[in-house]
Amino acid sequence: MTATLVDEQTAAAPPAERIPVAILGATGSVGQRFIQLLANHPWFRVHEVVASDRSAGKSYGAAADWRLETLVPEDVAGLTVKNLGGQLESRLLFSGLDSSVAGEAEDDYANRGCAVISNSKNHRMAADVPLLIPEINADHIDAITTQQKRRNGKGYIVTNPNCSVMGLAIALAPLHQQFGVDAVHVTTMQAISGAGYAGVASYAILDNVIPYIGGGEEDKIEAEPRKILGKWNGTFEDAQMKISAQVNRVPTIDGHLMTVSAKTRERVSLDDIRNALESFTGEPQRLGLPSAPQRPIHFLDAADRPQPRLDRDRERGMAVSVGRLRACPILDFRLVALVHNTIRGAAGAAVLNAELLHARNLLP
Amino acid sequence: MTATLVDEQTAAAPPAERIPVAILGATGSVGQRFIQLLANHPWFRVHEVVASDRSAGKSYGAAADWRLETLVPEDVAGLTVKNLGGQLESRLLFSGLDSSVAGEAEDDYANRGCAVISNSKNHRMAADVPLLIPEINADHIDAITTQQKRRNGKGYIVTNPNCSVMGLAIALAPLHQQFGVDAVHVTTMQAISGAGYAGVASYAILDNVIPYIGGGEEDKIEAEPRKILGKWNGTFEDAQMKISAQVNRVPTIDGHLMTVSAKTRERVSLDDIRNALESFTGEPQRLGLPSAPQRPIHFLDAADRPQPRLDRDRERGMAVSVGRLRACPILDFRLVALVHNTIRGAAGAAVLNAELLHARNLLP
Amino acid sequence: MTATLVDEQTAAAPPAERIPVAILGATGSVGQRFIQLLANHPWFRVHEVVASDRSAGKSYGAAADWRLETLVPEDVAGLTVKNLGGQLESRLLFSGLDSSVAGEAEDDYANRGCAVISNSKNHRMAADVPLLIPEINADHIDAITTQQKRRNGKGYIVTNPNCSVMGLAIALAPLHQQFGVDAVHVTTMQAISGAGYAGVASYAILDNVIPYIGGGEEDKIEAEPRKILGKWNGTFEDAQMKISAQVNRVPTIDGHLMTVSAKTRERVSLDDIRNALESFTGEPQRLGLPSAPQRPIHFLDAADRPQPRLDRDRERGMAVSVGRLRACPILDFRLVALVHNTIRGAAGAAVLNAELLHARNLLP
Amino acid sequence: MTATLVDEQTAAAPPAERIPVAILGATGSVGQRFIQLLANHPWFRVHEVVASDRSAGKSYGAAADWRLETLVPEDVAGLTVKNLGGQLESRLLFSGLDSSVAGEAEDDYANRGCAVISNSKNHRMAADVPLLIPEINADHIDAITTQQKRRNGKGYIVTNPNCSVMGLAIALAPLHQQFGVDAVHVTTMQAISGAGYAGVASYAILDNVIPYIGGGEEDKIEAEPRKILGKWNGTFEDAQMKISAQVNRVPTIDGHLMTVSAKTRERVSLDDIRNALESFTGEPQRLGLPSAPQRPIHFLDAADRPQPRLDRDRERGMAVSVGRLRACPILDFRLVALVHNTIRGAAGAAVLNAELLHARNLLP
Repeated sequence: MTATLVDEQTAAAPPAERIPVAILGATGSVGQRFIQLLANHPWFRVHEVVASDRSAGKSYGAAADWRLETLVPEDVAGLTVKNLGGQLESRLLFSGLDSSVAGEAEDDYANRGCAVISNSKNHRMAADVPLLIPEINADHIDAITTQQKRRNGKGYIVTNPNCSVMGLAIALAPLHQQFGVDAVHVTTMQAISGAGYAGVASYAILDNVIPYIGGGEEDKIEAEPRKILGKWNGTFEDAQMKISAQVNRVPTIDGHLMTVSAKTRERVSLDDIRNALESFTGEPQRLGLPSAPQRPIHFLDAADRPQPRLDRDRERGMAVSVGRLRACPILDFRLVALVHNTIRGAAGAAVLNAELLHARNLLP
Repeated sequence: MTATLVDEQTAAAPPAERIPVAILGATGSVGQRFIQLLANHPWFRVHEVVASDRSAGKSYGAAADWRLETLVPEDVAGLTVKNLGGQLESRLLFSGLDSSVAGEAEDDYANRGCAVISNSKNHRMAADVPLLIPEINADHIDAITTQQKRRNGKGYIVTNPNCSVMGLAIALAPLHQQFGVDAVHVTTMQAISGAGYAGVASYAILDNVIPYIGGGEEDKIEAEPRKILGKWNGTFEDAQMKISAQVNRVPTIDGHLMTVSAKTRERVSLDDIRNALESFTGEPQRLGLPSAPQRPIHFLDAADRPQPRLDRDRERGMAVSVGRLRACPILDFRLVALVHNTIRGAAGAAVLNAELLHARNLLP
Repeated sequence: MTATLVDEQTAAAPPAERIPVAILGATGSVGQRFIQLLANHPWFRVHEVVASDRSAGKSYGAAADWRLETLVPEDVAGLTVKNLGGQLESRLLFSGLDSSVAGEAEDDYANRGCAVISNSKNHRMAADVPLLIPEINADHIDAITTQQKRRNGKGYIVTNPNCSVMGLAIALAPLHQQFGVDAVHVTTMQAISGAGYAGVASYAILDNVIPYIGGGEEDKIEAEPRKILGKWNGTFEDAQMKISAQVNRVPTIDGHLMTVSAKTRERVSLDDIRNALESFTGEPQRLGLPSAPQRPIHFLDAADRPQPRLDRDRERGMAVSVGRLRACPILDFRLVALVHNTIRGAAGAAVLNAELLHARNLLP
Repeated sequence: MTATLVDEQTAAAPPAERIPVAILGATGSVGQRFIQLLANHPWFRVHEVVASDRSAGKSYGAAADWRLETLVPEDVAGLTVKNLGGQLESRLLFSGLDSSVAGEAEDDYANRGCAVISNSKNHRMAADVPLLIPEINADHIDAITTQQKRRNGKGYIVTNPNCSVMGLAIALAPLHQQFGVDAVHVTTMQAISGAGYAGVASYAILDNVIPYIGGGEEDKIEAEPRKILGKWNGTFEDAQMKISAQVNRVPTIDGHLMTVSAKTRERVSLDDIRNALESFTGEPQRLGLPSAPQRPIHFLDAADRPQPRLDRDRERGMAVSVGRLRACPILDFRLVALVHNTIRGAAGAAVLNAELLHARNLLP
């Protein structure tokens, strides 16, 4: 299992100096992950932290109820939290805003000329907003031009998908590209961190599983992969694929696990499927983007893997793990996939998106 | 939602006095549940406890590492553990033996004239052994006659299904009976108690999900429902139904939850399905068997139910809970089902089987 | 280990018919436990449910987000929630109000002539309010007379202690009564239900222990036992006892476990201590109160008991379990105690208090 | 809070090339941690892996049921497991052997001239074996000379303490050195990893706390700190300190948390104690040993810290976290301490011990 080596001729050039960025929703759980992931980033540096009125004016160290296992980076702890909606110096914004405020605030900053790299659901399905996974649909960034025209400026929004969709779409992408995927049953077992810090009460989830997640989780899983795996030809054309999703909250901290059964348009062998999964690679690998995993998909042979606690941190949480590939008595094949929901499935996805945009000279 | 009232004319008569029974594998986790469930049983009383050499000769109180939330019944605690394979006074035996020894030991006692009510997997698929769920296939007990002939005596074995199968088969039974079920996708999220007391290491399962269960769990789920929902016409004829199962171990203590997508032979509405589920009833209810739930299926309306911790104990753990009934974009409908794996899915199932056999005058 | 038999000559007489009661804070976690415990109570019946403005006017079934493993009693589900502060028909009120509103509301109802049996902390340390554990200080109810004078009426407040204090005080009571206890180190490991349903985020407590509980938990544990174990002589005189408490939140659902080291005034043997614990009994046992455990303290011999999940439900959650009695190298002896925090440590305690008051003809 | 800078004049010199080492008990949980921690060690490289007959002859990758979140180092995965007791090429052995075999095997290798750095309990209290924590009692290594004489060679055993003792001893060391500590109450809440991979059944510990740990855990906690904090003057002289320990197993994965109440010989203020804790440093810091934490003790101000999941990984798991320093109503002060039980409390401790021995030129 050799790592993808980045060809020097294709590698993206780093910026002359680290690009200043702002974090919207900086005190929340996704915001904290942004700050953690950007702490030693070679291309970007956290220059501004932005949150709601309640936190604005305080130092970030005082305003944030920091919950991650690593410590708050000292330089960020000293930044004064700015008010959401106010003027910012950065042109590149990472948004971990709650969906109750993200819609308007992100639009506003994009209209003011900023590149908004958003993890929120609000604009994901918009007609000229890329729902971007650089390994899969890097060409969807062409929609930015259309979007900039609408906004009369250089600003735009780029989004990454829902955390479960990230795992599903990456696992399906090589199979859809090579064989066509028609139908997908997926049952998710999602970690509590997906709901934010206060999202799931311990009294609700200890010794329990909750077969429901609010906010339209199943709808997202049934809709977003179709846009992601579809085409941009001036407008987005969805992939023709039926998806049936049943979601569950389980008492794990990080890592969304999912069982998948799927049908391919062509008849293919399990070996073909495995080869497609193992050899999958894309623009981030070709460009050597800093946050890119060497292999987007780790195929595991052990009968009882992937497991959230043991496999979620592969490649710093940026690789999707796949295992238990078997024939399905009803559709064609079955497998189990795992994604780190707050890294590859959220903040890490947005950072990778921004890296692609820099590599393509699309940052304002 | 009114409870099924037992018609006095159909109610089974209790025995003249409580029937003495023996528990095989009495110190194990299923054995302990047998003892707990039979503690105040109106028809049966625990007369003998049987275990391996290591425990034989000790008092049950000393031999068993009792792990249930209720205390060991005092009269059972004082019984001396008998050696597996030795002579027993009881004619009715409940077996919670491990599958490594159950095959031979159960056959042996059946050949000696005992009714062996087994929770083990060894004889479930045998050609003349009922895989019995009294609400579904009470007529399968006709196979006992065939079996008794083979054994040249009054003895026989009756089995109950795998714990996950119990939940699945009960949820499907009314739908299969009324509309025919062709195809079923099921993903289980199974509690740790299913593996026995020492079965799942805490280091393996805390903050984790394991997408695999050994011992052929998926094979059982794909095979047993076909026998259960099939017919006995001198031989067993399987139901024609394709099942695709993906199993997971999750950190819950009791209660197997499962997501199900299924296809019916006839076109039916969700209302039809719901009515079929809610009105489902069978022999145990008609006969008023002591362990029978009033309603075998509890249909729950709340969007986030059933949940293992909140719903597993309905009707003393003997009812299966079903919820989240919705149309499926690929097959016809989806739902979520829950079964208490160590009560309805194990010891309680066996006790109900024995009650049916008494009501039918089939106990030796 | 024989149960205490209630002498017919000492047994309290039940009321002519079940006494109507109101539940204050009926939709909260303590309120739900009140309703569960009173569902089939022989002396009391839930007649009114009272909550904040948000719930008032709805049916209880619709207003309460019911979280207990048993179902909402159907007769209570149909009651209309009344507004806190409004007129009530019941003269006996059980209060599970949050401490933010309990202080004023309870005083108000007491001043209007009601007996308020409160689980809240607000009035526990008041100069004429009994902090009552009927097995220990039944005579403290004499303070009610003083309180009624202050209120110019028949109304009064009676309180039960903090959930951890309940376990500690019951374990210490027989030792303090017989030998005098001077000094107590206690470290608690408290279940999440102690914080109410939404109190502890799963992200905070999974795979974790939090060595802190807000709201002055340690202060209560260091203060309340002194009042409970003290005397009423027209005023309350605290027991002379130094207590050092360190509290922790652990990922258990119900049951507060605590390690205790203590010093006695007299030199006593471990056998003396054990005898005192095992023979402990009080007014509820003498009077045969409906909620009284047969033995307030269960002394466990096994080296690894008591354990929350296995022992919290002894005597329907009303008994305190004690084990691991050993000499202490620094103070005199050590032990481990367990109390069901939401039954004996909260709602069950209040119900028992009300039963004592009825038996003593003190209900208005 | 500035890190201790290593004075270049005091820094230890690295070896000319990485020293080959063998791991005894390489497939077990401590063995796996050794391999993980030594994967990129600047001074040592894993050259041999040793285990019981069952694993011997297999490749390590095949023999070990690897359970850590990082992957098996590829070079170690290819090593063939050697049989315990056989000849080894390495002179430096790290032992994670189970105590059932460690006693004899470690003695044997030491007698053959090896330096055995042991995590097992067997030889900890031996009269000429250092129970070493380099920050505290680096001078105890003088006992090695005595031991070598007994063994007639260059070989010896050095041990590190029990995992809980490590946290306790480091927290107490600066206080004992400066003020004298007379008496200590400690209650531990220990993670499941302390019992090895299969040690604690999930059925035993989910939604539970077990107030007992076998193998003499409490005895070790009451004895080992006295040797560690004592003196070597040709023989070991224990510190005069009474310790009372009560241990509990809680459902956390890694990190032993403990509440401590203690009495000092001199009267000191809480500020004095805090200063002593924060300024504590020792030989590993002076010598700049590769595994040394910059600060052995992290003093945390937040009212609810340290917490196992949030603080166990400070300084790669090598720092002990202390918080909640308060006066004690009975003894003098109270605090809460946390140690990563499988890193600082086990494998990491042994690696640090070996580093000290190299720095002092004591490796054979």
